[in-house]
Amino acid sequence: MLRSASRIPSTKSAFSRRMTSTAANAFCVFREVDPLRAYRRQRVLDQKSIGLVPTMGALHQGHLSLARQAAQENDEVFVSIYVNPTQFGVNEDLDSYPRTWDSDLEKLHALDQELAASARGRITTIFAPTTKVMYPTLPPSSEIDGPGSFVTISPLAHVLEGASRPVFFRGVATVCTKLFNIVQPDKVYFGQKDVQQTVIIRRMVQDFHIPTEVRICPTEREPDGLAMSSRNVYLGTRRRAVGLVLSQALHRAQEQYKGGRRRRDDILWPAYDLLNSRVMEQEDSPPTERALFDVDYISLADPDTLQEVEVVEEGKGAILSGAIKMLPIEEAKEGEDLGLGDGQVPVRLIDNLILKPGV
Amino acid sequence: MLRSASRIPSTKSAFSRRMTSTAANAFCVFREVDPLRAYRRQRVLDQKSIGLVPTMGALHQGHLSLARQAAQENDEVFVSIYVNPTQFGVNEDLDSYPRTWDSDLEKLHALDQELAASARGRITTIFAPTTKVMYPTLPPSSEIDGPGSFVTISPLAHVLEGASRPVFFRGVATVCTKLFNIVQPDKVYFGQKDVQQTVIIRRMVQDFHIPTEVRICPTEREPDGLAMSSRNVYLGTRRRAVGLVLSQALHRAQEQYKGGRRRRDDILWPAYDLLNSRVMEQEDSPPTERALFDVDYISLADPDTLQEVEVVEEGKGAILSGAIKMLPIEEAKEGEDLGLGDGQVPVRLIDNLILKPGV
Repeated sequence: MLRSASRIPSTKSAFSRRMTSTAANAFCVFREVDPLRAYRRQRVLDQKSIGLVPTMGALHQGHLSLARQAAQENDEVFVSIYVNPTQFGVNEDLDSYPRTWDSDLEKLHALDQELAASARGRITTIFAPTTKVMYPTLPPSSEIDGPGSFVTISPLAHVLEGASRPVFFRGVATVCTKLFNIVQPDKVYFGQKDVQQTVIIRRMVQDFHIPTEVRICPTEREPDGLAMSSRNVYLGTRRRAVGLVLSQALHRAQEQYKGGRRRRDDILWPAYDLLNSRVMEQEDSPPTERALFDVDYISLADPDTLQEVEVVEEGKGAILSGAIKMLPIEEAKEGEDLGLGDGQVPVRLIDNLILKPGV
Repeated sequence: MLRSASRIPSTKSAFSRRMTSTAANAFCVFREVDPLRAYRRQRVLDQKSIGLVPTMGALHQGHLSLARQAAQENDEVFVSIYVNPTQFGVNEDLDSYPRTWDSDLEKLHALDQELAASARGRITTIFAPTTKVMYPTLPPSSEIDGPGSFVTISPLAHVLEGASRPVFFRGVATVCTKLFNIVQPDKVYFGQKDVQQTVIIRRMVQDFHIPTEVRICPTEREPDGLAMSSRNVYLGTRRRAVGLVLSQALHRAQEQYKGGRRRRDDILWPAYDLLNSRVMEQEDSPPTERALFDVDYISLADPDTLQEVEVVEEGKGAILSGAIKMLPIEEAKEGEDLGLGDGQVPVRLIDNLILKPGV
């Protein structure tokens, strides 16, 4: 399973499609546990530190910024690429989740070339296990009562995203436990974008005394403010423009906090106001123009417990977060870019801002 | 928290009560995680192997045989002593579970002196954490729906012992995950006596890719065949004599298997027969003589799934196990030894025999 441990020199064609195999050859690619462990063990004896960036592939600048940060703080960076079935509910988008192995490897290779000049560490290793490797004894279940070996973090996993996705964080905690046990990284890297995930992983590491350090990196955004996500490729131009309302609403609430407001209603009303007006605006537009969406939640929560707060405590701050669901496009316009899946894949958008203590 | 890393010379008085502090001084005793990790890290760099024996204290020959085996197979033996609240149900015997720190340390010290002459490794370290260390963020819950960070192994955890103790194996899997993460042992040692626990821990290690090897050691028995257990101190002479029926019944069934029987009923009937006649015998005896008991289950199960089998597969074998509950003594006789708790503590006895493949 160890395809190659050798490095290739950087070339101009590293970004082209035909460089795929070369990009893969630039890294050790492991699909099973034992050879990765053997490689890892030698790193321990050499006292080399390892930073792990767990991903489901479909890499974007958010992931690359995690790998870049990991390279600044470790001797070697491992990137795992595995679309974990247990974090998708039975009616969720496991089948349609983007899988882009070749371009993922190219992106990592290009980044690694960039890191060669500047960073302490390099990307050395890709872990891309099969599901049989990750779930060796029973087929992975997406049922809430399904059989299997799971890590549950309660009640953190049942609020916010967990309220509408009951198996999601059980799946995340379970697969991360496995990845951490396999790679035994000194540090693991997660993006602020999935804020509830960061809180749950931190709690899991603390409660189970997992010997790693959790590092959280800022949300990467498009120039217009849209938080980067692997699912954004399904948006298309129209839904993307309307979907910006989520980050805009959160920023409005953040302004209230920065202006000194501490009570829930005082902070959140401009966010609700914007969302409501945008909902009505869409409903009043013709099907060829509009992008309908549902607001799942806007939350102002305690940063440790994720319980909703009525007043933000000084010295503690809060997490301001939200989720909206962009519904399928009803009617296309001539020549319109509706994104992957022709605008028919519903896209859940999440975003958050940290209200820092005492700001 | 590191009380002493120095060794003391063996003395004849090592077994006496007043040697308690000396016995403790013979080992590194850690109550927190970070200093243990620092000690452990140096062992990694020195390429010293560690065997972990997880216990809840109240050490008996069963535990000591695990430590002895660990010393044969590792450079150092760590023993953890922690009575884990999350594996006791709300109505179970957490409060009355025996706690015998001083004599535990003496027994380990005496064993370590014995090991000095013969074994590859020595007992170097005791990990005796507080509950705040083991459950740092929420008070540990014994409720099945209680909050917390847990490891669940389903459906293995819900049959046999788990059927009457719904939180038991969740608690065991959770605390073992923590202990394994803290100690990072090369090998962990469990007794065959708790057979369902061994199956669940093996499954957990496999499913979560925990980097340790699970070693199972044979059940230690009293000369009369009673499986050793920390709870046996509560039996007293009368209940102990009657309680022997469990191992006797299992041995009868094993004889059937050894005699070539493979069908469930053919294997189990002599066990049921003996248990039933012993139940009736007790019911017919006067309260000053009898020791009443309930049979919880007699099981003939698949060794991997723990599902009941109708026919034992050649090449696979089976686990033959049972549980009975010794009820409180109704009326004592003059001068009778009723055990710790005056015969009033109900005592659940479990036992098992492995029906080996193709025997």
